[in-house]
Amino acid sequence: VKKQIAVLKDVTEANAILAGSLRAEFARQGVLVLDFVASPGAGKTSILERSIERLAGELRLAVIEGDPYTTLDADRIGGAGVPAVQINTGGGCHLEAHMIHEALGQVDVGDVDVLIVENVGNLLCPAGWDLGEDAKVVVASLPEGDDKPLKYPQAFQNAQVMLINKVDLEPYLPASAAVLRANGLTVNPRLDVFALSAVTGEGFDPWLDWVRRRAAEKRAAAHA
Amino acid sequence: VKKQIAVLKDVTEANAILAGSLRAEFARQGVLVLDFVASPGAGKTSILERSIERLAGELRLAVIEGDPYTTLDADRIGGAGVPAVQINTGGGCHLEAHMIHEALGQVDVGDVDVLIVENVGNLLCPAGWDLGEDAKVVVASLPEGDDKPLKYPQAFQNAQVMLINKVDLEPYLPASAAVLRANGLTVNPRLDVFALSAVTGEGFDPWLDWVRRRAAEKRAAAHA
Repeated sequence: VKKQIAVLKDVTEANAILAGSLRAEFARQGVLVLDFVASPGAGKTSILERSIERLAGELRLAVIEGDPYTTLDADRIGGAGVPAVQINTGGGCHLEAHMIHEALGQVDVGDVDVLIVENVGNLLCPAGWDLGEDAKVVVASLPEGDDKPLKYPQAFQNAQVMLINKVDLEPYLPASAAVLRANGLTVNPRLDVFALSAVTGEGFDPWLDWVRRRAAEKRAAAHA
Repeated sequence: VKKQIAVLKDVTEANAILAGSLRAEFARQGVLVLDFVASPGAGKTSILERSIERLAGELRLAVIEGDPYTTLDADRIGGAGVPAVQINTGGGCHLEAHMIHEALGQVDVGDVDVLIVENVGNLLCPAGWDLGEDAKVVVASLPEGDDKPLKYPQAFQNAQVMLINKVDLEPYLPASAAVLRANGLTVNPRLDVFALSAVTGEGFDPWLDWVRRRAAEKRAAAHA
């Protein structure tokens, strides 16, 4: 057990150093970087597809997809007309900074306003791993229940944004978007919370305005 | 990297040895042991609550609950009138055999027909960890989409049963229970698949018959 802890510490320290250098490079280029974290099937890819569709021609986007084995998600994002790079973790349950560093060999961030990282579908593992992002965006799907922030607090404590997805299903569920929002804010009072549905498109305007504002701030800071 | 792999191997080898001795003990006692694996919010606890309600007075049940931090699920199971032991992993993403071994200090399996382990909500980490169970039961919630077996194949390859939950929501979803079933069987043709809803109670009879049959077989083998 002692040996295992020592190794984990080495790995996370190395990760923090590399994430810091990625963050400095993203700041220099003025690229907003968002790390999407959620359970499998919460709707990360569907939210990205609809966000890309709405922001096309307005912001230059690129996506790094993290998945244990397949390229299914990268295929969907590529189909939405945005450069996508797939990272397969071979069953690993989160992305690490060195994987982002390697993926950047295939995305020219000088040509990008917003770089979105879609992490592996997992509410536990990605929480403590810095990828050099500006913000982690945690997606909580209403059909998963309204207690998720209480049961998996780290993912919510480490995020700046909580997206409540699939709110169109609320009439058919034993779960409440208002309770989910309140539980998220209990765990992390600084969260910006947006309720939306990637299926119907409702609720996307305030979320996309958040992205626009943060991208403009990041760009302005780089050119100051 | 080399060092990390070596440690992981040590840990999983130790786990396999302990899981083997748990399995021998469960066989001697004639206790059926099921390990429930799923994403957060797929409905493992709700399925257990309804299964307990239906099997009460017929089979003696006990539950070991795995969660990263809270006792929310054990409280629900205890409320359903069944002995429940909570294991908190402190953020760890799966249970290990030594945790089951420790929990058994608080459950007398000599008095139990079916011991249910509810693993940490995670589709990746628990897959490779033997807990001495007779079967892993993977719960796939239809609102998560019908592609989960393709994206997280290990959880389905290591299971004997797939429960498709929340089928009452199918009319409102861009996902099909038939496609989810087919994708599960593509990844693992030996899966027993049951489609049900823990909210409405539909579809529970064939699943509960599976539990009854397997519990009777295990008991008979112990007394042979």
